[in-house]
Amino acid sequence: MSSTEGKVICCRAAVAWEAGKPLVIEEVEVAPPQANEVRVKILYTSLCHTDVYFWEAKGQHPLFPRIYGHEAGGIVESIGEGVTDLQPGDHVLPVFTGECKECAHCKSEESNMCDLLRINTDRGVMLNDGKSRFSIKGKPIYHFVGTSTFSEYTVIHVGCLAKINPKAPLDKVCVLSCGISTGLGATLNVAKPKKGSTVAVFGMGAVGLAAAEGARIAGASRIIGVDLNSSRFELAKKFGVTEFLNPKDHKKPVQEVIAELTNGGVDRSIECTGNVEAMISAFECVHDGWGVAVLVGVPHKDAVFKTHPVNFLNERTLKGTFYGNYKPRTDIPSVVEKYMNKELDIEKFITHQLPFSEINKAFDYMLKGEGLRCIIHMEE
Amino acid sequence: MSSTEGKVICCRAAVAWEAGKPLVIEEVEVAPPQANEVRVKILYTSLCHTDVYFWEAKGQHPLFPRIYGHEAGGIVESIGEGVTDLQPGDHVLPVFTGECKECAHCKSEESNMCDLLRINTDRGVMLNDGKSRFSIKGKPIYHFVGTSTFSEYTVIHVGCLAKINPKAPLDKVCVLSCGISTGLGATLNVAKPKKGSTVAVFGMGAVGLAAAEGARIAGASRIIGVDLNSSRFELAKKFGVTEFLNPKDHKKPVQEVIAELTNGGVDRSIECTGNVEAMISAFECVHDGWGVAVLVGVPHKDAVFKTHPVNFLNERTLKGTFYGNYKPRTDIPSVVEKYMNKELDIEKFITHQLPFSEINKAFDYMLKGEGLRCIIHMEE
Repeated sequence: MSSTEGKVICCRAAVAWEAGKPLVIEEVEVAPPQANEVRVKILYTSLCHTDVYFWEAKGQHPLFPRIYGHEAGGIVESIGEGVTDLQPGDHVLPVFTGECKECAHCKSEESNMCDLLRINTDRGVMLNDGKSRFSIKGKPIYHFVGTSTFSEYTVIHVGCLAKINPKAPLDKVCVLSCGISTGLGATLNVAKPKKGSTVAVFGMGAVGLAAAEGARIAGASRIIGVDLNSSRFELAKKFGVTEFLNPKDHKKPVQEVIAELTNGGVDRSIECTGNVEAMISAFECVHDGWGVAVLVGVPHKDAVFKTHPVNFLNERTLKGTFYGNYKPRTDIPSVVEKYMNKELDIEKFITHQLPFSEINKAFDYMLKGEGLRCIIHMEE
Repeated sequence: MSSTEGKVICCRAAVAWEAGKPLVIEEVEVAPPQANEVRVKILYTSLCHTDVYFWEAKGQHPLFPRIYGHEAGGIVESIGEGVTDLQPGDHVLPVFTGECKECAHCKSEESNMCDLLRINTDRGVMLNDGKSRFSIKGKPIYHFVGTSTFSEYTVIHVGCLAKINPKAPLDKVCVLSCGISTGLGATLNVAKPKKGSTVAVFGMGAVGLAAAEGARIAGASRIIGVDLNSSRFELAKKFGVTEFLNPKDHKKPVQEVIAELTNGGVDRSIECTGNVEAMISAFECVHDGWGVAVLVGVPHKDAVFKTHPVNFLNERTLKGTFYGNYKPRTDIPSVVEKYMNKELDIEKFITHQLPFSEINKAFDYMLKGEGLRCIIHMEE
């Protein structure tokens, strides 16, 4: 039993007090976990676009003060009532969406969109009592997507924690919490390219490069990277990308350029930008008869996907995916194993390291489009 | 060797001289088959919407005089050079699209959109020499989709003929040439509902009812038929349809009505009308997490499919199919076997019978929306 079990823990957290303003490292109180909750000591966290998007709070309902963060690795400090899958000392990755193991989605082989624990960006409290576990001098601080990993300790629903191999280095595998798994799973679980096939990936950010890494693992013969920023292309080579296309360099729509390069279209495409025009291109660039396009990037709320229905009738498939179709508790441990057995290379995604006290620099890197993932070390 | 081999055959054919005008039974000359061609004695033919659509020639490039017809059953009379798969006396179903067995599509497990023999509604001649095999007093009469089965004898590329069990009654299995296989395959090969699942079928014509028959065979627990014509619903019960929805009876969009009826959406939907609004409804009515919608109906050339991309991202799939993804030569013989072993019931699709001399009545039935399939007997 840990000496802190059942007690409030005081620790450091990076609190967002206002939209778009630098986070402030504060002393916060973290209440003990309630039923089906787990208190986790975070060792490493990284920053993902989604944190930045909601921190900027442009267009969504703003919820402040709040503790962001959802890509992380940590160790269970204590467990609440009813938690049987985890115990103190277990190594875990928090995940922004959960797996209750009881709803129709969890019971379906195909879905990972748990009815109980599906991502909810508007909710800033825990499900059990509708309250926050974080406070500063008694004033509640909101949670973010049930994880809030920008804190030395956080409380998470047991359904949002993947128990992983304790030998896995948390400073590396923490990036499998979100973006890398999202891109990787989009290719391996949804697009499923056959060995020797051609794959186009739209967007050469971390998610898109993880999708390319998936295509490399699957044995694709050609991986065409598409991005509006040509400076991304050199980096992309490390991820198996064999050819690069900047739509700005062509007069024709990029789907036509790809069709010409590939004798009618690629076998698979994966869209990781969220731009609706890129989505349409990603769909229309796949070969008739067998082509499959997979949408990953999250679009603007008013976006409309448009295409001529004959593009479908010519035996093309369009699918979307959420978190690479991985079920957090069931599947993520096996992704960690892929890294452990060297099938999957994740170190190349890690381009920066920072101490927790400098977390705002990670926001700067992200906003400038510098690098891929910045690992933030909670212990300095 | 047949006594007619290598000779021109004079026989009766129903010739369309002008768009939308009644066919005229004429004495035509049918030339012997050339390389990779087969001359077939047609015993039974039926009428499909596609014949009527091109006979009306509204909007497409008109090609007259022409012999329509593509759903049929017959017997090989003679074969051209290089034909090794068929011999005189074989029972065959002509198919409007072919299978060369050599192109990338034919070699793909997933596609049936043969590069060489894919449906071509504009071509009125044979591939081998770019000429017609039909003439009247030396004046050529155009072919239709490589089949032209409204003739006692016709010449067809070997790649567009399925060799079937000679014990199968041609007056029944002729309907498997086109529409019934299209709907059946859309469900069994593409939508692939699991046993116990819920299925919505849009359009209660022959193709839609064949899709429902596929859902029945697959063991669907609920089959929701959607049609603007409520008089179709009584007939639909014979095809396993358990519930009926007429969008005109509801104020809400039909996809919302279906979602309410099915706790969030059906597992599978199949769109068999070609109306783009029905396509959108068919896609949006499937359950998130695992729903698959399949488009079968051919849309207007200016139709635009529109939806919010989040409908995809919530793990829905949209696929199109052509001829139910059946490869004509490889797969259609096994569909005939499904009928022979009583797994598939096709007799309920046959609502009318006519002698060849009264073929124009079949057009009237189709235009009035009466019945499903009318079998035309070539021998009176």
